[in-house]
Formats: sequence, C-alpha cells, structure tokens
Amino acid sequence: MTGRLSVVGLGPGAAALTAPAATAALAQADDVVGYGPYVARVPEQPGQQRHASDNREELDRARLALGLAAAGRKVAVVSSGDAGVFAMASAVFEALDSGPPAWAALEIEVIPGISAIIAVAARLGAPLGNDFCVLSLSDNLKPWAVVERRLALAAEGGFVLAFYNPISRARPWQLGAAFDIVRQHRPPSTPVVFAAAVSRPDETILITDLGSADPAAADMRTLVLIGCEGTRLIPRADGPPWLYTARRVAPP
Amino acid sequence: MTGRLSVVGLGPGAAALTAPAATAALAQADDVVGYGPYVARVPEQPGQQRHASDNREELDRARLALGLAAAGRKVAVVSSGDAGVFAMASAVFEALDSGPPAWAALEIEVIPGISAIIAVAARLGAPLGNDFCVLSLSDNLKPWAVVERRLALAAEGGFVLAFYNPISRARPWQLGAAFDIVRQHRPPSTPVVFAAAVSRPDETILITDLGSADPAAADMRTLVLIGCEGTRLIPRADGPPWLYTARRVAPP
Repeated sequence: MTGRLSVVGLGPGAAALTAPAATAALAQADDVVGYGPYVARVPEQPGQQRHASDNREELDRARLALGLAAAGRKVAVVSSGDAGVFAMASAVFEALDSGPPAWAALEIEVIPGISAIIAVAARLGAPLGNDFCVLSLSDNLKPWAVVERRLALAAEGGFVLAFYNPISRARPWQLGAAFDIVRQHRPPSTPVVFAAAVSRPDETILITDLGSADPAAADMRTLVLIGCEGTRLIPRADGPPWLYTARRVAPP
Repeated sequence: MTGRLSVVGLGPGAAALTAPAATAALAQADDVVGYGPYVARVPEQPGQQRHASDNREELDRARLALGLAAAGRKVAVVSSGDAGVFAMASAVFEALDSGPPAWAALEIEVIPGISAIIAVAARLGAPLGNDFCVLSLSDNLKPWAVVERRLALAAEGGFVLAFYNPISRARPWQLGAAFDIVRQHRPPSTPVVFAAAVSRPDETILITDLGSADPAAADMRTLVLIGCEGTRLIPRADGPPWLYTARRVAPP
C-alpha cells in the first residue's frame, strides 16, 4: 500500500480550463484536501473523503495531506488556478522540509494549472506581452517594507505588475499604499484592471486607470493588474476594450 | 458567414496539460496558423488548412490569421504554453491595432494555456512560492540596455527570476551577461535551473547554481529560472531534488 500526494491546480474556474491531468488526479484521489471553496469545486465521488478547511491554515493543511499520504492514501491537495503561484504547493514543500524523514520517500507530483494571472490576461487580450512581475501584497509572511521595496523596483523597471492578495479585512490599506508607490513611476493614464472569478458565472472585470484606481474595487479574490508604458487599449464595438502590451520597447 | 479568431495556448506539451477549451477550439478551426513545430502538435483534421511558418514572423502570421477570420473562416492561432506570455497574443493585438478598421468587429477570443514557467515550476516543486519576475532576454524588439536595467532591479528586489528566449544563434552572449548582473546581487549558491520541453518525451531539467551556471546549457527552447534568498532544495531518494521558495521573507 503506497500513498501518493498530488498537488493540483484546478484552473481559474470553468471546467473547460481545467487540465485533463488534474481531472484524472482528482478522480483517483481517496482524499481531497483544501480551502473550502476550492474543495467545493471538485466533483463529489462515492467513498472519497473531503477535508475542507479555513483560509490561512496552509501549513496545517499541508501536514494533514502529507500524513494521509504517508498512511498509504491517494491524496489530492487542491488550489484554484495554479498551486505554485501563491497557493498550496510551497506550503506542502515547507511541511515536507520540516517534517518526519519518512515523508521524503513519499511519491509527490505537482500538476500545473492555468493560474489566475494567465486567465485574466487572456480575458483582457494580451497585457502580459512584455516583461512582468507577480507579487503578493499580503504582509502576513513578509514585512511590508519588503513589499514596498519590491513594488518600487518593479515599477521603476517598467514591468507590467500583477498583484495577488491585494486586500483583506485584516489588511485594508495595503493596496492603496501600493498604488501610491506605483504612481511615483507611472502616469495617471496607465491602465489598471481589477479582475475576479474569471471564467466563472460571477466573473467581474473593471478596467480603469492609475489616476482613478480605487482600492475599494478589490476584495481578497481580486487580481489587480497594472500596465506599463507599452500597454494600450483597443476599443471594441460590443464589450470592454482589449488590453495589450506591445512587444517593442523604446530605447531609454 | 462570420469568421472567428481563437488565439490558443497549447500548454507545455503533454496532451493531459492542454485545456479542454483549447482542444475544442482546435477541433472547430478551419485554419490553424502558427510556428511550424507548434502547428505540428495540433491533431490533423480532414479539411482543415494548416499554415505553418518560420520563427520570428509573428506579425505576418497574425495578419494572415486576422485576414482569414475577416474572410469568414474559423481560425486558430497556436502557441506553445500560453499565447499571452512571449508568444502570439500580443502580435495579434498589435496587428489588430494597426490593421483595417473592419478587423475591430471580428470575434476574437484568447484561450489561456499552462505557460512554460508554470509547468517548469510544477515539475521542480514550488520555486514560484514567492514574488517573481518573468523576462524575455531577447533584444530583437527591446534595447539590451532595458533588459540590463530590468535584470538589475529585479535581482536587487529579491524576486525569483524566469527568463524566456535566453539565447539563440543570433544572440549568443546575452544569457552570460544576464548571469553576471544577477551575480552582483545573489550568492554563488543560489539555485539555477535550465528546463526544456517539460512534459514532453525529450524533457530536460538541469539544476545547478549561480556560481557555476553555464550559458551553453541553454538553447532557444530553454526556460532559465534563478532562485531568490528563500529558494531551497530538498533531497529526494529517487530523482533530482525538489526546489521550493519559502513563503516567509525575513525583515530587511
């Protein structure tokens, strides 16, 4: 009896954007472990145990999953989007690294998914058409001074910026502070997007600009994207404009 | 008779990592347009026209695809990985933006895919567990001075770094120069990965460090990943070590 741990990215929401490898791993799992709303996205199967937990319990959840696999069970740990981008994969390897030596012999696989930033970009057009940085604005595990420093350097470098975890009840002011830092390096006309639940029925997309971007438009599920000098809008007859970033960059 | 243009990311290679939405769009396409090796990955269908072209002809290819769609055909433009990350999507919108006004009325959709960086990260463990930057090292469309500046800022900021287009016959020295820039900000022990063809039969993964990273280990298909201060290795009994980046960041 050999256990196995699959760390699975479910994709952004629509079943048509979930990789067949992920669907197969979920179908074979004895146990599905994850944050409640993500576990709820996995089709129920007879005999399959579901372990839904609260947000911000990543390390406990990872240890539970590794323990179940060590006991011989086939376990799927699920994240929305891709598990490697501000989701469960790093928590699993942190738990492995600090766990009992026996866990090192476990069969583990990480099944990639379409991450939120990739899905949002596709919905908008091609805003990631040039160099980009992806940051979490959460200062639960890193000092806010580090976030500020990274924001300033990335904004100065002309990268397209994508923010995960932009805001929460416990972190109400960080997104506004982040916009202020970026405003020191980019004009008010710079496109800004608030996107949530892309490809799901409750999808919301707001395209605005840096001058008028209001942090209140975000909640904890929102991905915030800020364009760079080469990011442009193309009007569309029926719908919001396309957004893309030119591949060409002018000399400094 | 209404044409349609689908810009499709095929995923990194394995069929199990191609989104069902991509597979469906390809099955419905009258025309498949793309770089030869990517068009070759699309299952052939009776009656479907295939337009395989050489590398570095993105804008011509985008115009061909838009023209076919404007003539009423269902067209799929294909990229490996995700079309929005240093691939065809931005070329399509550049062509749209500078093309005949009639193109603005075309039905266009971008179908996201699992990008190379996401697939590579999953194969390694969780190296993107903290803030990261994705850069193209190609100076075909942006001055090398811009690449240098972005590299220095991103390295200084402690981001995990991922390089697309690290090297080619026409750009033989850029990757070495990039390593030299990063070496000014990170110790020789920093993990470096060269990954190519992930999830395909010819997959190659080389895990080394910044002190000994040799640009000759890369070719134009290679994705290069450089860890940050929090990137760690976990030895595995049977196979290369796991690589992950801790979520926690120490105060500066």
